[in-house]
This record gives sequence, structure tokens and C-alpha cells, in this order.
Amino acid sequence: MNSSRNSPAPEPSVSTQPARRHLPVPFTAVDLQDELWAARQAVVRERTVPFLYGQYEKNGLFEALDVDRPPGPLRIPFNDRPTTAVMYWDSDIAKWIEMASYTLAEHRDPALEARVDDLIARIAKAQRPDGYFNTYFIRREPEKRWTNLRDWHELYCAGHLIEAAVAHAQVTGKSNLIDVIRRYADYIARVFGPGSNQRRGYCGHPEIELALVKLHRFTGDRRYLDLARFFVDERGRQPHYFDQEAFARGEDPAAQYHGTYEYSQSHIPVREQRKVVGHAVRAMYLYSAMADIAAEFDDASLIATCKTLWADLTTKRLYVTGGLGPSARNEGFTADYDLPNETAYAETCAAVGLIFWAHRMLLAEGDARYANTMELALYNGALSGLSLDGERFFYDNPLASRGGHRRWAWHRCPCCPPNIGRLVASLGQYVYSTAPGEAAVHLYIAGHARLAVDGLGVSLQQRTRYPWDGAVQLRVRAEQPVEFALRLRIPGWCRSARLAINGTPVDIASMMDRGYAHVRRRWQKEDGVNLQLDMPAERIYANPEIGADVGRVALKRGPIVYCLEAADNDAPVHRVALPRSNPIEPHFEPDLLTGVGVLTAEGVAVGGWKTDALYRTDPPGAQPIMLRAIPYSFWSNRDSEEMSVWIPEI
Amino acid sequence: MNSSRNSPAPEPSVSTQPARRHLPVPFTAVDLQDELWAARQAVVRERTVPFLYGQYEKNGLFEALDVDRPPGPLRIPFNDRPTTAVMYWDSDIAKWIEMASYTLAEHRDPALEARVDDLIARIAKAQRPDGYFNTYFIRREPEKRWTNLRDWHELYCAGHLIEAAVAHAQVTGKSNLIDVIRRYADYIARVFGPGSNQRRGYCGHPEIELALVKLHRFTGDRRYLDLARFFVDERGRQPHYFDQEAFARGEDPAAQYHGTYEYSQSHIPVREQRKVVGHAVRAMYLYSAMADIAAEFDDASLIATCKTLWADLTTKRLYVTGGLGPSARNEGFTADYDLPNETAYAETCAAVGLIFWAHRMLLAEGDARYANTMELALYNGALSGLSLDGERFFYDNPLASRGGHRRWAWHRCPCCPPNIGRLVASLGQYVYSTAPGEAAVHLYIAGHARLAVDGLGVSLQQRTRYPWDGAVQLRVRAEQPVEFALRLRIPGWCRSARLAINGTPVDIASMMDRGYAHVRRRWQKEDGVNLQLDMPAERIYANPEIGADVGRVALKRGPIVYCLEAADNDAPVHRVALPRSNPIEPHFEPDLLTGVGVLTAEGVAVGGWKTDALYRTDPPGAQPIMLRAIPYSFWSNRDSEEMSVWIPEI
Repeated sequence: MNSSRNSPAPEPSVSTQPARRHLPVPFTAVDLQDELWAARQAVVRERTVPFLYGQYEKNGLFEALDVDRPPGPLRIPFNDRPTTAVMYWDSDIAKWIEMASYTLAEHRDPALEARVDDLIARIAKAQRPDGYFNTYFIRREPEKRWTNLRDWHELYCAGHLIEAAVAHAQVTGKSNLIDVIRRYADYIARVFGPGSNQRRGYCGHPEIELALVKLHRFTGDRRYLDLARFFVDERGRQPHYFDQEAFARGEDPAAQYHGTYEYSQSHIPVREQRKVVGHAVRAMYLYSAMADIAAEFDDASLIATCKTLWADLTTKRLYVTGGLGPSARNEGFTADYDLPNETAYAETCAAVGLIFWAHRMLLAEGDARYANTMELALYNGALSGLSLDGERFFYDNPLASRGGHRRWAWHRCPCCPPNIGRLVASLGQYVYSTAPGEAAVHLYIAGHARLAVDGLGVSLQQRTRYPWDGAVQLRVRAEQPVEFALRLRIPGWCRSARLAINGTPVDIASMMDRGYAHVRRRWQKEDGVNLQLDMPAERIYANPEIGADVGRVALKRGPIVYCLEAADNDAPVHRVALPRSNPIEPHFEPDLLTGVGVLTAEGVAVGGWKTDALYRTDPPGAQPIMLRAIPYSFWSNRDSEEMSVWIPEI
Repeated sequence: MNSSRNSPAPEPSVSTQPARRHLPVPFTAVDLQDELWAARQAVVRERTVPFLYGQYEKNGLFEALDVDRPPGPLRIPFNDRPTTAVMYWDSDIAKWIEMASYTLAEHRDPALEARVDDLIARIAKAQRPDGYFNTYFIRREPEKRWTNLRDWHELYCAGHLIEAAVAHAQVTGKSNLIDVIRRYADYIARVFGPGSNQRRGYCGHPEIELALVKLHRFTGDRRYLDLARFFVDERGRQPHYFDQEAFARGEDPAAQYHGTYEYSQSHIPVREQRKVVGHAVRAMYLYSAMADIAAEFDDASLIATCKTLWADLTTKRLYVTGGLGPSARNEGFTADYDLPNETAYAETCAAVGLIFWAHRMLLAEGDARYANTMELALYNGALSGLSLDGERFFYDNPLASRGGHRRWAWHRCPCCPPNIGRLVASLGQYVYSTAPGEAAVHLYIAGHARLAVDGLGVSLQQRTRYPWDGAVQLRVRAEQPVEFALRLRIPGWCRSARLAINGTPVDIASMMDRGYAHVRRRWQKEDGVNLQLDMPAERIYANPEIGADVGRVALKRGPIVYCLEAADNDAPVHRVALPRSNPIEPHFEPDLLTGVGVLTAEGVAVGGWKTDALYRTDPPGAQPIMLRAIPYSFWSNRDSEEMSVWIPEI
């Protein structure tokens, strides 16, 4: 298919039929058994979950739950604004509970469950009689409750608690957390809303909106969905809530740290937004909620806005790794095509948030363009945030380093570890989805899934070495013969794919719909589907508007973006170049970094300077060198220093 | 000469005789008449001086002098430390007085003089009976005098007041400021020192040290020199003064904003320092004072330290423009070879400070390597801080911009404008120097100077179009025939120079001493010296350890570093490349930017993308384009956006 295309970038999107809204197959019904993700899930379960618990204990996060004790001195004040990292701690505890709950789905662990229950008991004990719960404001500044929605993350923390509660209830069936959190959500629904006795505010950091949609879907309670829509609709309206709130505090609204409401995507009403701006994580969480609300209310103007923003992000503001938000200053977006490599902020949480948004767009639209970006961020810009041992993390994910950029065990704003952790632990839900008469395979990951298509049980077994190989064998078992369309994603990077059903080749080109091979047939009790995705190593070039990448090339194979890391190369990474015509060879190295695909090519190392002069009129010399590239997301797992994704091409 | 060298970088430094310490010919005896600097001096006098006065007035700097009035609210608090920009304002007023005084040397201006005298009267009125003067601490926090030398810039402000007072007295002959400031200096000399009843402290921001040496040289009072040496010698000693001072404030010394005393070059005693570290301006001012003290006390260990630090800076940490201090975070130095272009901080004040240091090293050592760097910083990294109209400024001087980096009229830390202003206004003092039996020409700038060599008057007239042309005619007029060595600098960038005395060629190679042609002869009442410095356009390559510049080339002609600016080129600057073999042609354009040399070459523009995809597997196309480069320091004087010094070479 698509053999005439010489570029994977433009997505096929001929819509041959109206999109059907898909629902994800829940992670509880998907068992990953591959070499990569199953191993990462084990690491998150066995290492990240206990390690972060220990870190939280050491850094006083759990102490904060003892709301009856007077608080100690603030340990993590931020220097530069009237806020403190401690204000966000509830969200980290919540994300930890969410992550831990996901790991319990397939691996019951009474000790871990008891630990979770203990935290829940402390949360329940601390909850105020009216339902309010926020350890910072309960303990330190009770009079300031709801007085600075712009900066102080109260509703953001509530959102993460809601997500945690839904995950915990889903997996364990227990109601101890969801009951507490519903009381909080009910209270929030009383405080906020369009009524004359309600506050018309919304959180500076979106999160509660998507959480309320989850709570609605889990409980069936419509109030939560309406509140989510209220928060989305109010955002950016005039008179501006954050202005009024600042006046009420006796402050000048213009004195806010980031100088613009673009920072929190509240500069204009959401339906008028055309550019992806501001803090990248906030943007992704907001857009995710917008996609949710659009789907729930069939809101054409909102989904149109999402598509406009999607196009803006993916054609002007996204790193080749799926990372996003280039600037540390605002933890977010700057100008079109401003995608510097060494200083890339590209927060792990932003890539995780992009996956959330992409997943929602995919389910709503059924278009593989969203799955392509979701996969890109998953294998590269998000996964890079987690070390192989599960105990070291990246907050920012630059695409080049001269050394000194190392994974850390603790960060004063420790939001990323449980975010990538909860994503990995619940990854199963991103692999498949179903709709009336349809089942879709979005990601190729070896494993097993139990689907319900039109009420009938269908099991899918994937056998594949993806992402290291493009051959995928699917075994489809239906409890009785049933007709439905199996939608198989043909990844955007793939230029040639072949498909066979029970050994018989089929014409894949005629089946293509929005980037998926649409295999409609009457499935028998057991069928075999063989998909062969050609997966050569490729050179990727950047739009020359991206100044940082002009004259450079990135290496990619399948969904994996590669990088040169010092440990694998005999010349300093910043000194090498790759001649345009040299072939690039893929290999699998089972003993490297728990087993990864690598790419090798003959390159050139600039050198032969032989003087301590900084500058001279003689150009430096060059020697041939064998270059070896590893997957970007696996870098910084050894004692190595330099790394680069974009290699000068000569 | 040096025709066998193919690189200008290694400096000739065969010392054929011991260095004699030179003294500068004061700016009052040097009249610049060239196209570049004379025009800049006029702009500083006519525009910068009144413009900055107006800015200070508008921003409340002069109000601060009314110490009898209660202060208004703090206008310029810094967000992130227990300090405020207002704490530095005295230094800006002082630098303005210093700059204004210099302009009065050749252009008496009663209105300006009256304005200066008015400021001086206000300073005198505000001075405390004990001699103390600091508007911030007198007015706002009198109880905090001398309680935080590390952060609060009191002695730094005193230093600038001393420099202003010396300049004002030198030029006007008046004593109204120097008397006031000497009382302050005398008070400081009572408070600080090795005595048991004295404070063993020193300023976090070096400046007063070099100022006290100036005060000593002007007044002949030895106490000031001893105090300067005390401050230099105490720096970095244990127990650390800043530790003790923090304890006395009840603070944890480790809680300082920058986390390391390297920031203020007080991490170890100065003689043990081997690396150029920390805040770049602080480093340059400290090293300048160290060179002064080394010269005054003939202190071999101190001059050896200066030379070690010089080598570190110039072989590992200096931009090709003479800019320095790559990081905005600490306004200073990072790691060896870490010289990013777009994010280069390279503060204007740091380049000005490098000129101060280089000048002192040059006078002490007589080696052209120091003059070469002084000239480089002067024409490039420092001059870039001042707009052609004298009313716009750069604080940071990146070597590349994608747009958005514009000169500003006001900055919350407005230290750079009067710093580049005072340098330009007093530039005459950097051109010539004398020592017993010697006169030296360090810079080639058309104009006239009155020197005293061994007590005899000698006048020098330079005729040259330098830096646009390498031909220099010197007319030497002595009041009576006299033998002395005229030392003519052969710039480090020059690979071939010819010299003729009264029309007769001489063998320049045999005369070379530490980068100078050493022309010893009996000068008659009038002699003509013709120096021809070959000045081709050249390609400059960076040591490949500088990752940002690998595969790139900079263009230079004479002392001028060039850049591509959007206004002069038909393709976006970030998209162009320069084939290695294409010739580079110099031209002079009299109507461009008040008249500048430009370089042109046929280059290539990357483009032909024709899709909105960010990434693809097809490389972009390329078209030939004529590139035009202008002097780096002249950029951002038009409505242009992009700029780059380092051009990809293909």
C-alpha cells in the first residue's frame, strides 16, 4: 500500500464512511506479553511503585496527610512565585494510587493493597465535613481555599484524586476511595457552576475536566459531566475569572508570573483557540477534556477546535520524538518551528498528555493520524522519561545533550514519574477499541485481549516482535461466528504492507479507511490474520523552517526514533556526521539495554584539531567511523554523557 | 610576516626582552577622527547620555537620591532572591556620571555639566555623616548596612561611584564629587580591613577593587591600594566571610540562590583559581583588579594566576565575537566549550569587562595576545550592545537569532547601557601606551594623540580606514629628535604585513616582539610610518569540541566578525549554507548602516519543502543564493529578525 508515497508524513484520511465512536478495550482485559512493554510494566510494578512510595515518604508527602498535626516548615517553596510545590503534593499521591491500582489488575498484592488502603484511610480522615480535601489548604492556609484558582492547583489535585479513585474502584472493586472522592466532587459541583450562588471559576491547570468525564463514565452520574463541560466552557470568558479573583486578593492581575493567560490556555474561550500555546501539560489535559466533551455532547464546534489545534501542533510545534513544549521558561510552547534540541524542555508529562489527547481524538475520529502520533510519543518522547530500572526519571527530554543531563531520583516538582508510571501500567487500554460492528487494533504489541463486539466475546492474540520487526500474526477467536470489521492500523511510517487472512493474501489497498485496513468479514471461531509491515531504517528530514535541524538527519525505524549515545560510538557524538548516501543497517542486540534494535552506518568524525586554539582558519579534519544508534527512549541508562537525535548530514 | 602560518589563532610571543610596564595615554590626550568610533562617541554624547538620563528619571533612579523623602513602593523587585534591582541603582547613576564626564573632555557642555553637578549635590546631601552613601540602605533598610555583602552590592555601588568621581575630577578638574567619594572610601577603609575591629569582608560583586586602584593612582593615597589588595586577598578564604555573614543573619549559607561561591569567584582564594567560573561580569572585574594589584605590587603569583585564567578563557570559554558567559542562569560560565549560539547570554557588560582585563594584561605584559582579544571584544561582542542611534541596547548578545531578540530601551537591570557608553566615550585610552623608551600603538583608529615619551612631547597622527582597510599611515612628530621604540601591533588576524619608514621598506619579521613590530630609532621632528596589514575575508572554524559550531563556518575580515542578517538576504538565514570553496568578497557600502564593510559569497538556500509536514523522508531541496554578511555588532539596527554568525558549510 501507499507504495507511491515517498514520505510517511501525510496521513491517509479518505473517509469512506462516517466515523463511529469507539470505546477503548479496558486495560483489565488486555494482557501485554511482548519484550518491551510487558517488561516495563513489570518494572513499574516491582520497582517504580515501591521506589516512589519511599521517595514520597522521605520527602514528606505522606506527612502532609496528617492534617491534624501542625505542618512543619515548607520544604519545597518555589523561589519565584507565591506558590509552593507542596501545593501539588496531593496530585502526586493520587497519581501514585492510580498507578499502584493499575498494577493490581493482573497482580494482586495484598501488601500493596494494604498500603493503598492505608493512604485512603488517611485521606478519608482528613476530609473536611463539607467534602473538601486538600492537604495544603486544610493544614496551612484554610482561609485561602478557592482564592487563587489560577496558580494554586486545588482543582487540579482534585482531578488527580478523581482519576485515582476511578482506577482504584475499577481494579479493586472497593468503594473506600471513590466514596470519599465523590463527596469531594459533589462538594465541588455545589461550589462551582453557573448558579448565582456558585463560583464561575475553573482551574489554572486543567485536569479536573477529563477526570470528571471519567467519573461520569464510571458512575453514570451526569452532574460530573455537566461540571466538566462548565469548566471547559467558562475557560477564557470575559470578565476573566482570574482577573476578578486577583482583584479580590488585592492583587494586580497583570502581576502574574507568566504574564499571559496563554500560559493556562485561558486567554480566550476555548472554541476560539487556534494555536497550541502556553504550558504544554496544561494544554494537553485541556484538549483531552475538550475531545471528551465534544464526544459526549456531539459538539461539532469543539471537535473542530480540537482538529485545528491538532493540526497546529503536528505541523508546527512537535518534536520528531513526539515531545512537545520546547521552553523551560513557561514549560511550554513558544513560536512555530521553534524546536531547539539541546535545550528542548519536552516534559515527560506533556508527551503523556499528548497520548491522552491523541487517544481521545482517535476514538472520536477513527483516523490513524491520531494513533500515529500516539504511538510516536509512546515509544519515544514519553517512554524516555522512565529508566530501564524504573527508579530514575527525566522531567525534560532534550533531543541532544553534551553531557550533564541525567535521570534523577527526585525532583522538587515530582509530577512525571507517576505520570509515565500510570501510563505504562494502564497501557493495555490504548491497544484496542471497539464500536458497534467494529474492533480496532491501534498498536502492535504481543499479547492477548478479550473484547466484546456487539455483545459477543472475541479474543485476540497478537504475536509479533514489534517494534523490532514488522511481522504481526493475529489470532481472532470468537465465541461464535460473527460479522464485524477488524480495523488494523497501517502505521504512518509504513510504506508497504501486506495482509493475509488464513494464509490468503488480500488486497490491502482496497480496504484502506483513514489509515486502517478495514477487514470486514464473518469471523469464525478461529481465524489467522497475518500483517507484514515493511520496516526499513529510514532517514528523516525536518521542515527547513525548523532552524535547529537544517542540514541534519534523524534515523528512524518503525515507530522508533534513534539517537547516537556516547557509550556506543568511538568519537564524541557532537563531532560526527553522516554522508547522505551511506546505507543504514538495522540489527537486534539482545544483550544491549535489555534487548533493543540498533542502527549502524558508516559516518565521519570531525577532528584533527591538534591545537588548543578555540578558532582558526584551517577547517578541522575528518575520519571515517562506524556509527551506532540506539532507540532514543533508551538513552541515559548507562554511564554515558553525550547524545544526539539529529545528526549533521554531509 | 608570519606567512608560513595558516592560522591566526596562535599568538607570536617570543619575548626578546623583559616586559616594561606601560601606562595608557589618557583619553583626554587622544582624539578619535575615524568613521566608526568618532561617530559612536558623538552618538553616545548626543544621544545616549541624555536618553539614559531621561530613562533614569522616568524609572525613578534619581528619586532614590532624595533620601530625606520616604521611599515609594519598590518598583523593580527581583522575583527570585531577597534582593532588588533598586539596590544597584547607585551604580547606574555613577556609570552615567562617569560616561557623561568622559564626553565633556572634548566637548564642554555647560548644561550637561550643571546636570552632573546637580546630581553630585544630591549625592553630597544624602551622604551620611560617617561618609556612608547608598541610597537603598540609607532610605529603606538602614539597619541592614553591610549585612549581606554577598548579594546586596553595596561595595559594588561604592566602586562605581569611585570610578565616576575619578573620571569627573580628571575631566572637569572639579573636586565636588571626588571629595564626597573620598570621604566614603575613607569610611570603607575604616570599616574593612585586617584589623581586629574591622570587617574581613569583600563584595559579592567585584568592582570596588579596580576602582580603589584608580583612586589610588589619581590621589596617590596608598591606603586605597592596600584596601584593594585586602579585598582581593581575602576573597575565598576560610572561614568564608559569606558563611559567617549568613549565620549572622540567621540564614543557612547553603540557601544562596546560585548554590556555589563560584558564582562570585569566592569559592577558593584567588591565587588558587585555575578556571574561569561563575558570573562573567564579576569574573572580569575581579581579574582586572587582580592584574592591577599584580602590577602595583609586582606580584608574580597573582599575574601567573591571571595568565592561567586568561588561557582558560581564551582556549575554552570565549565566543568568536569576544562575547563570554554563555548561560543566562548564572549570567556566566558553564563548561568548557559550551558555547551555544542562539541562547548565548554573552552580556554586554562581560565583554566590556573583558576589555578592561585585557587592557590591564596588555599594559603589564606587553603581549599582543591581550590586545588581539581586546580588539576582538571591542569591535564585536561589546559594540553589539549599543545601537547605531545610541538609544537601544542589548543586554545579552546571542550569535544567532530566529527573531524576537531585539534591542531594548529599558531593562530592569539597566547596567549595560552606561557600561558600553563609558567604554566608547573613553576609548581613546585603549589606543596608545607609553613606557620608558617606548610608545605603543595597540589599536588602529584614525585620529590624533599627544604622548609623552621619557618626558618629551610626541604627537602621533593616524590616517587609516581601519577596520575596513588594512593600510595605516602614521605621522610621528617629536618636539625634538628623540630615540624610542615605537611598538606597532601586528594584529593576530593578520598573516602578512609590510612596514616602511619614510618610504623605505623595513624587514618587519626581524622586529617582531610579542606580536609588535618594535621600531627602535631616533625619531626626527617628523617621520612617516606606513603599515600595510593584509586584510582578506577569511573563514573561521571552531574547535570541534564546540558542538554548536561543528560543520559551520564564521566569516571574518580584519577584527570584524560578520553575520548574516535577514534584511540583507533573500532566503531565511536559518536555511542557508555556504559551500567550502566559494570565494568571499569584501566591499564597503557607504550607505548601509552609516557605512560598513560587507562580505558577499554565493551560497545555497535549503528549501523546496512544499508540504506542511514537519518531518519526512525526502530531503529538502536547495537553490543557489547570493549571501551578504554585515558586521555582527551592527545587527538589529533595522526591522529585521533572523541573524546568524555561524553558517553551515557544505
